[in-house]
Amino acid sequence: MILLSVSSSSSSPIAAVFSVALLLFYFSESTLGAPCPINGFPIVRNISDLPQDNYGRPGLSHMTVAGSVLHGMKEVEIWLQTFAPGSGTPIHRHSCEEVFVVLKGSGTLYLAETHGSFPGKPIDFPIFANSTIHIPINDAHQVKNTGQEDLQVLVIISRPPIKVFTYDDWFMPHTAARLKFPYYWDEQCLQESQKDEL
Amino acid sequence: MILLSVSSSSSSPIAAVFSVALLLFYFSESTLGAPCPINGFPIVRNISDLPQDNYGRPGLSHMTVAGSVLHGMKEVEIWLQTFAPGSGTPIHRHSCEEVFVVLKGSGTLYLAETHGSFPGKPIDFPIFANSTIHIPINDAHQVKNTGQEDLQVLVIISRPPIKVFTYDDWFMPHTAARLKFPYYWDEQCLQESQKDEL
Repeated sequence: MILLSVSSSSSSPIAAVFSVALLLFYFSESTLGAPCPINGFPIVRNISDLPQDNYGRPGLSHMTVAGSVLHGMKEVEIWLQTFAPGSGTPIHRHSCEEVFVVLKGSGTLYLAETHGSFPGKPIDFPIFANSTIHIPINDAHQVKNTGQEDLQVLVIISRPPIKVFTYDDWFMPHTAARLKFPYYWDEQCLQESQKDEL
Repeated sequence: MILLSVSSSSSSPIAAVFSVALLLFYFSESTLGAPCPINGFPIVRNISDLPQDNYGRPGLSHMTVAGSVLHGMKEVEIWLQTFAPGSGTPIHRHSCEEVFVVLKGSGTLYLAETHGSFPGKPIDFPIFANSTIHIPINDAHQVKNTGQEDLQVLVIISRPPIKVFTYDDWFMPHTAARLKFPYYWDEQCLQESQKDEL
């Protein structure tokens, strides 16, 4: 299945060469696959043609399948993310709705209720291919690839751009969590768009 | 991939037997897989355990992966739908955001701008595994399996419950389109929920 061929950034050298070739392709030949397709976008998009990046996070491959900055979405965003074994999201929380659909691999969801002054020891939930994960609003959580192969998930969030609070550990006070708002994966494209308007 | 093993209602006899067996299972053994899990729902759900139905539409298999009635979603819904060859959605429009992720098979998106007094002749877009489809708000559209194998899609919509206008053909006036609001796939569960409150 083609969808599953998107590689995480820490996978085989062949995949790395493929990724570089793909990147060069975006910057040279293709307009549809360009990182910031500001002037409209096609109704039907080949997911393999979408740009991917690790955003400085080892083991991550992120693709915005449908996004506010890239595609003008106002109410939902959809991301395709691949986590290499050992990698995962930071511990974080947000007030939007979030659902994961696990397409490939396995891992662990760590989830803490946030009713005290810090998240506290999380509950572990095994996640697996063909499972769906529902993140309760404002609960601190972390998704981690604790398996042996790439973990690939489709992530759906509501009301972009989201407001994210990130924690260094489960016992960091809520008041010390780092806020990022607006949180855009594709903020580089937002800046380019703003430049164009000057 | 397990996700792809969900069968449309018009596929092989073996799949039909499997579906019946699965249905019996829901009504006898499982509480998680029950059609209307009113009293809470698990954080991590096995998609294979979710109930499926064709809602009287030949060739359709619908599963609500994350829904407002079943799972308390307020801002997004996610459906897993399989269309047998020749089947598809009605011609319809709605004002929510809608994105399809095509997991398997191929087909055609028919899309008409709705600026006149009726949709008019639609534009055809080929859709294929590993593509994503963005439906412009309020444009009349139809997704159809025009291929030879099952077409399987993940559908993401915003702001449930949606308000749907359905057309008999592309030249039916907007004023004659049939309105259904609220549109719940799982309205049977809504009714059961209301009964419980009496």
